[in-house]
Amino acid sequence: MSLQNRFTEKFGIEHPIVLAPMDYVSDGRLASAVAEAGGLGLIGGGYGDESWLRDQFDRVTTDAVGCGFITWSMAQQLQLLEKAIGYRPAALFLSFSDPAPHAPAIRAAGIPLICQVHDLEQARRAVAVGASVIAAQGGEAGGHGTGTRSTFTLVPEIADLLQREAPDVMLLAAGGIGDGRGLAAALALGADGALVGTRFWAAEEAAIPRAAQHRALRASGDDTIRQRAFDIVREKPWPSRYTGRVLHNDFIRRWHGDESGLRGVLQEKQEQFRAAVKAEDYDVANLIVGEVVGQIDRVDTVASIIDDMVGSAAAILGRTSHQLAALGS
Amino acid sequence: MSLQNRFTEKFGIEHPIVLAPMDYVSDGRLASAVAEAGGLGLIGGGYGDESWLRDQFDRVTTDAVGCGFITWSMAQQLQLLEKAIGYRPAALFLSFSDPAPHAPAIRAAGIPLICQVHDLEQARRAVAVGASVIAAQGGEAGGHGTGTRSTFTLVPEIADLLQREAPDVMLLAAGGIGDGRGLAAALALGADGALVGTRFWAAEEAAIPRAAQHRALRASGDDTIRQRAFDIVREKPWPSRYTGRVLHNDFIRRWHGDESGLRGVLQEKQEQFRAAVKAEDYDVANLIVGEVVGQIDRVDTVASIIDDMVGSAAAILGRTSHQLAALGS
Repeated sequence: MSLQNRFTEKFGIEHPIVLAPMDYVSDGRLASAVAEAGGLGLIGGGYGDESWLRDQFDRVTTDAVGCGFITWSMAQQLQLLEKAIGYRPAALFLSFSDPAPHAPAIRAAGIPLICQVHDLEQARRAVAVGASVIAAQGGEAGGHGTGTRSTFTLVPEIADLLQREAPDVMLLAAGGIGDGRGLAAALALGADGALVGTRFWAAEEAAIPRAAQHRALRASGDDTIRQRAFDIVREKPWPSRYTGRVLHNDFIRRWHGDESGLRGVLQEKQEQFRAAVKAEDYDVANLIVGEVVGQIDRVDTVASIIDDMVGSAAAILGRTSHQLAALGS
Repeated sequence: MSLQNRFTEKFGIEHPIVLAPMDYVSDGRLASAVAEAGGLGLIGGGYGDESWLRDQFDRVTTDAVGCGFITWSMAQQLQLLEKAIGYRPAALFLSFSDPAPHAPAIRAAGIPLICQVHDLEQARRAVAVGASVIAAQGGEAGGHGTGTRSTFTLVPEIADLLQREAPDVMLLAAGGIGDGRGLAAALALGADGALVGTRFWAAEEAAIPRAAQHRALRASGDDTIRQRAFDIVREKPWPSRYTGRVLHNDFIRRWHGDESGLRGVLQEKQEQFRAAVKAEDYDVANLIVGEVVGQIDRVDTVASIIDDMVGSAAAILGRTSHQLAALGS
């Protein structure tokens, strides 16, 4: 079973499935596992840690591995981008802030640029700076975003934009895709492939404590929430338009909506937060997952996740089509 | 071209497409047009107006027409439900508040109950009260909802719930579905059909000024926003968990986020609002549309909308399937 299209051709991969570059969780091992299973792996360059990033590229076992950055954070230490380009990644992925200052170096190096966007204005900007691929991320995704649009409508609206103005730019759907139903829907909506975060967060190879995974897999998508409190306690200076979806917990119950109160007791809460992360206490520590967590009930290997996703997407599409064929057209 | 399944069989219709019961816009004419084109039409009983509702049922030209209510509002004038049952509708649709007090009368009359839900708890409640169909509405939808979940993840998570606990209860996807891509994606995600609002709002037969439609069709989904200001100026006492998605305009720019300020000048603003509605001045008056408005660029007849939606969904699914077949499995 395979799902080949122009996206898989461009990247020389078997399935149009891309690992979301989840800060630290998407390490060299997880990215390699996705690439070895036929997808495109993106290391989570995240806020930017030069030695960590080097270590991850050292661990990469196969070609189809790239790297993603939180653009506003990477922009504060530009040598990171130079280093990343030097690793000859299969793609560089930029999200959260204007990609324009960084696009020329990436393009000059002949590395495909993937820009993640949250609305039409950002999509137009990505086209203008020469992105090869746009990842259209809906607010159901785990982690940061603007939360103003959903995958279901953002993908086809951007697909229409690209068809009119930049038909060679490819499109990934991001946010909400965790199984074959989601992959089939993403393709139906006009995407060339899917960016998958939470489902791989719950993979055996993910760099995340097993206790974190098991806590999240008991949850419904209803148990996730967009918030800023964890950015405050982690001192991550996100631009105000971005909030982050996480699993609801005691910390969020206390501080979501009382952010100024949190700032007033920041040092104490930071100590508690750090201790909770260390102790794997997820009543206080953050679990960054999307709404799709409600569809996931077990930890699996990356290979079996991709196998199931592709097989199920094909079966859904095929079955529906047979049904149609039987009815005549 | 047809898309038949257990949903179309149950309602004796040709396509698994349901007109969302949009208050006043979904009148007897629009509901009949959808039913005559092979879908299920739902008259927008909305906040409840007994004589308007009677007039609409008087205009109905075909069998596959039902009626929907804003439950908390209908509950303040229970004779409305009796009257609606008396019209022998093809379905009764309840959304926004607990359906339990009203379900027994609907079931006793042998009328299929459709419950619109916004999360898993509401879905379980709908099953418990004997709903025949659940409409899972994501926050991308126009009009009211909780805005906490998106169609892309809510539909499959509820599909899983129903498969485990109530496999005979059918599922509609609601929010974001305006073309064949959306219908194909809804089916792929596990829905038996689609509830369609905004696309029919922009139909020739919709009970809405043409100026309103043309204003909305220039917009992107990015130009929509969830808010409460229009409920305040219209004095609609919505429970606090519900907000409404509308087209952004000058009124929202001024009052969204300053709701207490609006309450302080309510009488003056109500006069301005009513005058704006009358004058078709949509800088002030409300246009209730969903994110999918960004995919719609013209007013069409209901018949051509449904024809295009079904044909395009089938083509998408068929094309993808041929591609798969060519690659082997």
